[in-house]
Amino acid sequence: MAETQHSREAPHLVVVGAGFGGLQLVHDLKGATLRITLIDQRNHHLFQPLLYQVATTILAASEIAWPIRRLFRERADVTTLLGEVTGVDKAGRRVLLEDGSSVGYDTLVLATGARHSYFGHDEWEPHAPGLKTLEDATTIRRRMLLAFERAERETDPEARRALLTFAVIGAGPTGVELAGIIAELAKQILWQEFRRIDTRGARILLIEAGARVLPAFPEPLSAYAKQALAKLGVEVLLGKPVSEIAEEGVTIGEEFVACRTIIWAAGVAASPAAEWLDIGADKAGRALVDGQLNAPGHPEIFIVGDTAAVTTPNGKPVPGIAPAAKQQGAHVAQVIRARLAGKPAPSPFRYRHQGNLATIGKSAAVVDFGWLQLRGWIAWWFWGIAHIFFLIGARSRVAVAWSWFWTFASGQHSARLITQGRKWTDASARPPDPDRPPA
Amino acid sequence: MAETQHSREAPHLVVVGAGFGGLQLVHDLKGATLRITLIDQRNHHLFQPLLYQVATTILAASEIAWPIRRLFRERADVTTLLGEVTGVDKAGRRVLLEDGSSVGYDTLVLATGARHSYFGHDEWEPHAPGLKTLEDATTIRRRMLLAFERAERETDPEARRALLTFAVIGAGPTGVELAGIIAELAKQILWQEFRRIDTRGARILLIEAGARVLPAFPEPLSAYAKQALAKLGVEVLLGKPVSEIAEEGVTIGEEFVACRTIIWAAGVAASPAAEWLDIGADKAGRALVDGQLNAPGHPEIFIVGDTAAVTTPNGKPVPGIAPAAKQQGAHVAQVIRARLAGKPAPSPFRYRHQGNLATIGKSAAVVDFGWLQLRGWIAWWFWGIAHIFFLIGARSRVAVAWSWFWTFASGQHSARLITQGRKWTDASARPPDPDRPPA
Repeated sequence: MAETQHSREAPHLVVVGAGFGGLQLVHDLKGATLRITLIDQRNHHLFQPLLYQVATTILAASEIAWPIRRLFRERADVTTLLGEVTGVDKAGRRVLLEDGSSVGYDTLVLATGARHSYFGHDEWEPHAPGLKTLEDATTIRRRMLLAFERAERETDPEARRALLTFAVIGAGPTGVELAGIIAELAKQILWQEFRRIDTRGARILLIEAGARVLPAFPEPLSAYAKQALAKLGVEVLLGKPVSEIAEEGVTIGEEFVACRTIIWAAGVAASPAAEWLDIGADKAGRALVDGQLNAPGHPEIFIVGDTAAVTTPNGKPVPGIAPAAKQQGAHVAQVIRARLAGKPAPSPFRYRHQGNLATIGKSAAVVDFGWLQLRGWIAWWFWGIAHIFFLIGARSRVAVAWSWFWTFASGQHSARLITQGRKWTDASARPPDPDRPPA
Repeated sequence: MAETQHSREAPHLVVVGAGFGGLQLVHDLKGATLRITLIDQRNHHLFQPLLYQVATTILAASEIAWPIRRLFRERADVTTLLGEVTGVDKAGRRVLLEDGSSVGYDTLVLATGARHSYFGHDEWEPHAPGLKTLEDATTIRRRMLLAFERAERETDPEARRALLTFAVIGAGPTGVELAGIIAELAKQILWQEFRRIDTRGARILLIEAGARVLPAFPEPLSAYAKQALAKLGVEVLLGKPVSEIAEEGVTIGEEFVACRTIIWAAGVAASPAAEWLDIGADKAGRALVDGQLNAPGHPEIFIVGDTAAVTTPNGKPVPGIAPAAKQQGAHVAQVIRARLAGKPAPSPFRYRHQGNLATIGKSAAVVDFGWLQLRGWIAWWFWGIAHIFFLIGARSRVAVAWSWFWTFASGQHSARLITQGRKWTDASARPPDPDRPPA
């Protein structure tokens, strides 16, 4: 790749990753005397908090994803590049790209996020896809819908039972949200459309090694969520670590459960920013940063979001959620602006927790602001309005509102398509992940 | 697969293919004393007339595709199966499926459609995908968007030029529609978002072996369409057969044009229904049928839609468009109802041509009813309203209307996502087609 052709004098800021952190940073640097290059390995920013609704047939991909370069089309200072970063040359101040080319920087921000992690069991991945990208969502949607289709054709009762058993591993917000919608699909929607099977008899297992669902929430909300899940027909298995995952099913402790659709929502690992920089990391692989989110000894390199190890004032890790990444992006923008202006640096980054939200199916949710806890339909409405508000642009807000309205009014999901992947007859095969960062 | 488990006495009608012909047939047989099994190799009915808008980033897949089994959820007489038909045992009256199982029938309707055909040059397919399925649309969308992305990173002027050259082969309605939207994308929308290239300089070639665009339309409308395309910046090359297609570009007659995005809109071939039945076919592979759309000598087997060779009263082949398939489906429903009632067969099928429609970009279209010809914006509005009317269900009508409104009001396309496929860096590779019928 060519070095930037402009001969302007403004310092060159390279931002890697157009997730919540990277976007906030670039947004906040509007008008600063900078040339900004924003590099991402995808052409779109993804609103990950609603990705589970793409996986569960409620929303279309284009309702929660926006071309990155469109978001900055009015910003002549921002050049967007589709590219895969493979490393950083700290001494030469260059970001290395997949084709052997490189991009020089004066200041670098790594905001490269996280992927799901199988805790050392990468061999589980083909059988239990996680949910981080649009491709992941399409894969999960295909597998789930194909399981019902194959069950309709299956004559062996045991094989049919396995096809109608769905296991979600991990009872954080993503696991809870996925299990809730799958249960609603099976028990409330699909049963009218099949003639040989009764999808209401499907088993939906939510398997959690810990003692409760939604462990980041206060106990009463966890208890409420568990009850709401049970009401939807989800079997919640707590204190049950998964010991094995294979094509035929999942082993929970010593017990093998035959199931053909397994979804991994149990853990994430940081992208390899710490490796690229050859700096320390915590055990989730998140790069250790100083109070200004700088790589130690490198004031020209910042790390924000899920790939940075940042702690709250009371020493707990900052959660891997969108508001945390945005706050970090905003902080780094402040630091950079202060430096450009020759002013002293702002006080070190301090995470302000705004709250936790999670939905359980189409009518219940839990919201925890610390000072206020909501549950039930009022929490659901709060959750829905908040999420529509945070979507980018009027088009998506209207489109998502319409999809939700339709889902509620008609009881039908609008995106129940089996697409992509290999031959549908090859249900267990997972298409190669096109955009996996190099390991 | 198990034979139908019901022990009801009603005769068993098997319909293969849930395109326009198959859906119309099943719809029209509501209330008939029949058990109906509808088999398709996809789980969705696709509104193919708008597929080019998915390929060109205007619509989302779920706006023009509906789960087949949902369409018939109120019809207890209809069982929907996801399955790939591999042959027909005429003597045993069984349809053979991909897993070696079979489904018995009393009456069989094959409505299996067509795929694009490369006129004996199947080796062109990896370089010039056609447009028949949602996967095709996603592939074309990826390649087109990736070409712009790669051009932004390319420093070699010649390579950049090839990336910014788009060739659409075949100037029927699909080719005209694709070329028009690609030109609008490059010349009106994307240029604001790139910093190193000017997408307004992109070349969009529409290459046609015949003497005019839209050959099925009257000459004045063809001339108008050509002019409208030129106004959008499309280079229309008429009387230019393509002699070679390779990864690097397309050879038109003797002239090689370097281009990295090539789309095939030049020809279709019928699905292998005639082969399955071992009956005669025309040179496009369409099965020869009698006046009631029966396979010769087999009154229990009907063939409808793009895979049947049916001629108009003046001897021309019936066009491969949705209304023709629907009329044939409706006719076969009449024949079957007459037989069930012990009444004489209706008079032989007679195609009633309702008209031809095609759009050129976002503000022009041509409409030919024979007795009335429209062009320009009035034709565009007619086209738009007609297509929204024919979409299935209120949800899609509102969603498509909203997407179109948004596209026009904002000048932005809503589905500009690069997804699926293999690594994006491997732009020329085409993912294996998951749903190709067996050759």
